[in-house]
Amino acid sequence: MFSENTLWLMLAIFSLSASITLASDPDPVQDFCISNPIFGAIKTSHDMHYILPCKNSSEATTEDFVFSGLKKATGNFSDTGLAVVSASPTNFPGLNTLGLSFVRADIEVGGINPPHFHPRATELVHVVQGKVYSGFVDSNNRVFARVLEQGEIMVLPKGLVHFMMNVGDEPATLFGSFNSQNPGIQKIPSAVFGSGIDEELLQKAFGLSSKQIGTLRKKFDPKTAR
Amino acid sequence: MFSENTLWLMLAIFSLSASITLASDPDPVQDFCISNPIFGAIKTSHDMHYILPCKNSSEATTEDFVFSGLKKATGNFSDTGLAVVSASPTNFPGLNTLGLSFVRADIEVGGINPPHFHPRATELVHVVQGKVYSGFVDSNNRVFARVLEQGEIMVLPKGLVHFMMNVGDEPATLFGSFNSQNPGIQKIPSAVFGSGIDEELLQKAFGLSSKQIGTLRKKFDPKTAR
Amino acid sequence: MFSENTLWLMLAIFSLSASITLASDPDPVQDFCISNPIFGAIKTSHDMHYILPCKNSSEATTEDFVFSGLKKATGNFSDTGLAVVSASPTNFPGLNTLGLSFVRADIEVGGINPPHFHPRATELVHVVQGKVYSGFVDSNNRVFARVLEQGEIMVLPKGLVHFMMNVGDEPATLFGSFNSQNPGIQKIPSAVFGSGIDEELLQKAFGLSSKQIGTLRKKFDPKTAR
Amino acid sequence: MFSENTLWLMLAIFSLSASITLASDPDPVQDFCISNPIFGAIKTSHDMHYILPCKNSSEATTEDFVFSGLKKATGNFSDTGLAVVSASPTNFPGLNTLGLSFVRADIEVGGINPPHFHPRATELVHVVQGKVYSGFVDSNNRVFARVLEQGEIMVLPKGLVHFMMNVGDEPATLFGSFNSQNPGIQKIPSAVFGSGIDEELLQKAFGLSSKQIGTLRKKFDPKTAR
Amino acid sequence: MFSENTLWLMLAIFSLSASITLASDPDPVQDFCISNPIFGAIKTSHDMHYILPCKNSSEATTEDFVFSGLKKATGNFSDTGLAVVSASPTNFPGLNTLGLSFVRADIEVGGINPPHFHPRATELVHVVQGKVYSGFVDSNNRVFARVLEQGEIMVLPKGLVHFMMNVGDEPATLFGSFNSQNPGIQKIPSAVFGSGIDEELLQKAFGLSSKQIGTLRKKFDPKTAR
Amino acid sequence: MFSENTLWLMLAIFSLSASITLASDPDPVQDFCISNPIFGAIKTSHDMHYILPCKNSSEATTEDFVFSGLKKATGNFSDTGLAVVSASPTNFPGLNTLGLSFVRADIEVGGINPPHFHPRATELVHVVQGKVYSGFVDSNNRVFARVLEQGEIMVLPKGLVHFMMNVGDEPATLFGSFNSQNPGIQKIPSAVFGSGIDEELLQKAFGLSSKQIGTLRKKFDPKTAR
Repeated sequence: MFSENTLWLMLAIFSLSASITLASDPDPVQDFCISNPIFGAIKTSHDMHYILPCKNSSEATTEDFVFSGLKKATGNFSDTGLAVVSASPTNFPGLNTLGLSFVRADIEVGGINPPHFHPRATELVHVVQGKVYSGFVDSNNRVFARVLEQGEIMVLPKGLVHFMMNVGDEPATLFGSFNSQNPGIQKIPSAVFGSGIDEELLQKAFGLSSKQIGTLRKKFDPKTAR
Repeated sequence: MFSENTLWLMLAIFSLSASITLASDPDPVQDFCISNPIFGAIKTSHDMHYILPCKNSSEATTEDFVFSGLKKATGNFSDTGLAVVSASPTNFPGLNTLGLSFVRADIEVGGINPPHFHPRATELVHVVQGKVYSGFVDSNNRVFARVLEQGEIMVLPKGLVHFMMNVGDEPATLFGSFNSQNPGIQKIPSAVFGSGIDEELLQKAFGLSSKQIGTLRKKFDPKTAR
Repeated sequence: MFSENTLWLMLAIFSLSASITLASDPDPVQDFCISNPIFGAIKTSHDMHYILPCKNSSEATTEDFVFSGLKKATGNFSDTGLAVVSASPTNFPGLNTLGLSFVRADIEVGGINPPHFHPRATELVHVVQGKVYSGFVDSNNRVFARVLEQGEIMVLPKGLVHFMMNVGDEPATLFGSFNSQNPGIQKIPSAVFGSGIDEELLQKAFGLSSKQIGTLRKKFDPKTAR
Repeated sequence: MFSENTLWLMLAIFSLSASITLASDPDPVQDFCISNPIFGAIKTSHDMHYILPCKNSSEATTEDFVFSGLKKATGNFSDTGLAVVSASPTNFPGLNTLGLSFVRADIEVGGINPPHFHPRATELVHVVQGKVYSGFVDSNNRVFARVLEQGEIMVLPKGLVHFMMNVGDEPATLFGSFNSQNPGIQKIPSAVFGSGIDEELLQKAFGLSSKQIGTLRKKFDPKTAR
Repeated sequence: MFSENTLWLMLAIFSLSASITLASDPDPVQDFCISNPIFGAIKTSHDMHYILPCKNSSEATTEDFVFSGLKKATGNFSDTGLAVVSASPTNFPGLNTLGLSFVRADIEVGGINPPHFHPRATELVHVVQGKVYSGFVDSNNRVFARVLEQGEIMVLPKGLVHFMMNVGDEPATLFGSFNSQNPGIQKIPSAVFGSGIDEELLQKAFGLSSKQIGTLRKKFDPKTAR
Repeated sequence: MFSENTLWLMLAIFSLSASITLASDPDPVQDFCISNPIFGAIKTSHDMHYILPCKNSSEATTEDFVFSGLKKATGNFSDTGLAVVSASPTNFPGLNTLGLSFVRADIEVGGINPPHFHPRATELVHVVQGKVYSGFVDSNNRVFARVLEQGEIMVLPKGLVHFMMNVGDEPATLFGSFNSQNPGIQKIPSAVFGSGIDEELLQKAFGLSSKQIGTLRKKFDPKTAR
């Protein structure tokens, strides 16, 4: 039998090995590579989802390729009235290495999905309920935006800032497809004001006073209880 | 002024140039590249959709990035009870070069989407209405299939044969996301029996008689009126 | 000293780690990466060949980059008169990560290579002996096929259904080059009729009776003794 | 001889063709592909630089592969004390298709490079003069930043927000290498407040009043004379 | 009717457009893209072969996908006893965009294929006749080489110097597969001594006298009649 | 507690796992992947630098993304007057998986960087001090070379032979950017004459006598003390 120390070292190896696979989102060289729940469990302190080591292909089951977690909105709405549930390799193992992921976003009346971008994927938004003002900004600071009706789709090019607002009078539901299994996300307000960038730099960048920056930093600092 | 012949030659150049762009589905090197309707028009004899030449980026409009054509099913159901509408660069210009496409599929009660595969993309199926038996076959001839309920999603790995059947008692509606702007498709029955492969070879491959192959070929030959 | 349990766990890690590398077929970032026989041994229950962990580059030998197993046909002909031997990273370690693989196919007089496709590679066929009817079907169900004479080559585009038949009066030998180290394969007859797809769906897809489908399923079910 | 109309149409074709090439930043399939100055001239209304059509390789000269325009800072400093000169395929034709670009950035004492990101490249910054506070924010809103001394380099991962400030008492000079010929750029202040995103959405996203947003929009609207 | 000048301009556009397509060797986004003979003809002054514009897919014929030009050796042996015939998109149009090419090399008794490398592809060598000493050098200057017998294959990793010598007593024939449609080639003797690199630099690099370098330059200067 | 044998086996696994990650240089699927010093240490017998396993992202520090080792030249000049220091994932962990590396090269007056090439990257050379004759050879054996002054940059296309010589009267300093984290290198003189390629083959390739080849081999054999 092996000791606890051995086990701990094993877990360390598992953990390191798990990280090994993060390097690429290209064509698969096998039919599929189902992420292993053991590794997923080890990585729970990360809130991002990566390419994960795969379990033996002979143990694959149909359930590995099906996901039921997007049937309804999570009740967990943010301050801005947004609730997002993702289907990614950590909870939908069959996606691993296949270069796709999927999210469900519900937005309360008047709620918003603040300006953000995905460093590693183009997104295709599909409005299945409600009226949603949706758009993105290109490299020349032009905005492309309008209200999407139920059944319409919009494409948000890779790496460009985009945003949504429920402008109808009922809750809105959207589904987003990404052409990466881990699109990544940077939410502008918290990335800029909630990350600890030097205050003087922010004042100069936005032409705001020390006090104004201080207010914004307090609002978006994740350590502040909200 | 230029003559009609010149114009014709111009169109020939356009047409050739249009084909030039077919070479790849990788990362874009610009924000977007909206396919030009002029070229699209020239290519109407193709039923596939490719990377197309792009119009000047300063002429991009919001409408280039939005598509409204999937709001309802086309009434155009196939023999097997299937109606598909695609959003691809030919009808949704903003998709061009961004590595994604999208389809709506409606299936009548008892209808099927016959075994087929997409040579250039993984597909993520999202059932928004109905009960759909859905699955795929891997390289070891194992089938992964089950009935999907409303709201469930399934991933169909790149290049593997898959299929669907509406097993509920109401029409079914699915949306499929692809991580290529031109996934391609080969429908097994018509690719094998409707394409003119040598009859003797087909007899030997399937262990069927000349008469049986003849019946199948007649059924799937697109030149036969059906 | 470590116990058997430890060793077993090690092998489990090896096995998992081995699967880690399956994710991609892109440009190498090193000169080569010779697959390690230890890992290969662990994976013998798989009949597919993947990117494998590599041994220390200082232990590479010339033999790792040379393969002698295609000198002659295996005597092991299939029902349809086909014998295939592959050179892949599992038996030819130097190929690992380099994006190429190679096969030898021998076909008896009148024998066939049934309709099949490779999800992850284009194939270039080189006829070194015999007369072989060879072709493929494109996405529009057009067939491109003719008899290849000795010394001719044919290209079979990525992911499209193709087939061969020895139409000469001597055994035929072909060599196939693939631009992936693991092209994958789906043989249409067994993928469709030997994989357990729902019978009703197959009846509707091919317009065949329950009895006819039953006959085909019996023929191609790998669990049936043949 | 051809008329002016013909010429105009030719230029239109050139212009369209020029856009054709924008699709990818992958491995070249030729030694090089020098961008053609004729096409560059046509595209002067764009301030971005793309993959351009190449001139006949037999007309390549050494000067196509050398660029002298980064010897000194442009005198053209922005409001925030930043002056940037780029070497890209539009002014350095030999770069075209080779997957690299390069910039020189000079920053006045106390000047800043505001928070921004490059959607299509990782950047490697090399400080050749001065002391520069430099950093980036990851997807978890952690900031990685410190003062770089002369001779130090820092890597800024693809698609993540980063920034710089000259914290020394002399002008600072940096060189940035990118692994794309067209990294793209979104400057957070102007992309968010200078692009015309709906005002209500911005109020909700940043928790700012209508008046505060109005002030920011006025500051970053490129149409405002500054 | 259009004038000769117009036609000339057309050809110039064709020629430029032809160059447009050289940018990449990635996954195709269409079934195939057959290079157009018109463009090929224009490019005859180039001895390299590139991705070429494609003809309308509805005009594709089986002959576009078959090549018969490797049935026998060209009689055209070099000074070192080597005769090479290539199958590339310029003479085998169906290869275009599919990421593969193929060559036949015949080597006289005692003849050699001098040290050279392919910047853009791994090569798989298949000896179909004769005994060939074959090998490559890795980044640590280790040589991996041995005599290949008939039927053996060897892999030569991407971008590494390799070489062959017929060490048997009959002519040797090899076939090489490449995982790029335009692998490129640099032959060490002529690239180094026949290209006009500064003489002093070569003296210092190889520790040879001015006279020795002069002799080598005379031998490998392609302008010298040999 | 585990024994030394266990530990040794662990290290073996680490070592193997470390090699697992060498497979690709494509887009990252995570923000970053900092190479783990433990693995780096194990691989010190290699003089090449690879993609390495990454440490837990929550343990990343700013120092992982900054490198100070290029501030000054190493005093370690080669026989030809060249001193090179690299920033690669082995000494600059933050670079790992991000597709870039960087070197500093110092050249003594009259010193050279002998003809060499990088199999896996394009290089962009930036002369920050001195006058450097710099150039490359293309696939048609044309040389593109001239003297670069301080502040000039030159691009050296992927996989093509290039070289430098300090032709000024002061030491020269250059920085090279690569679009791969492991560009690889083959130095022509030592790869050809110092690697053990068969002597007869080299005589025939260069038209040199056995004695001349012997002299060259003695000079470039790394086992010879120099």
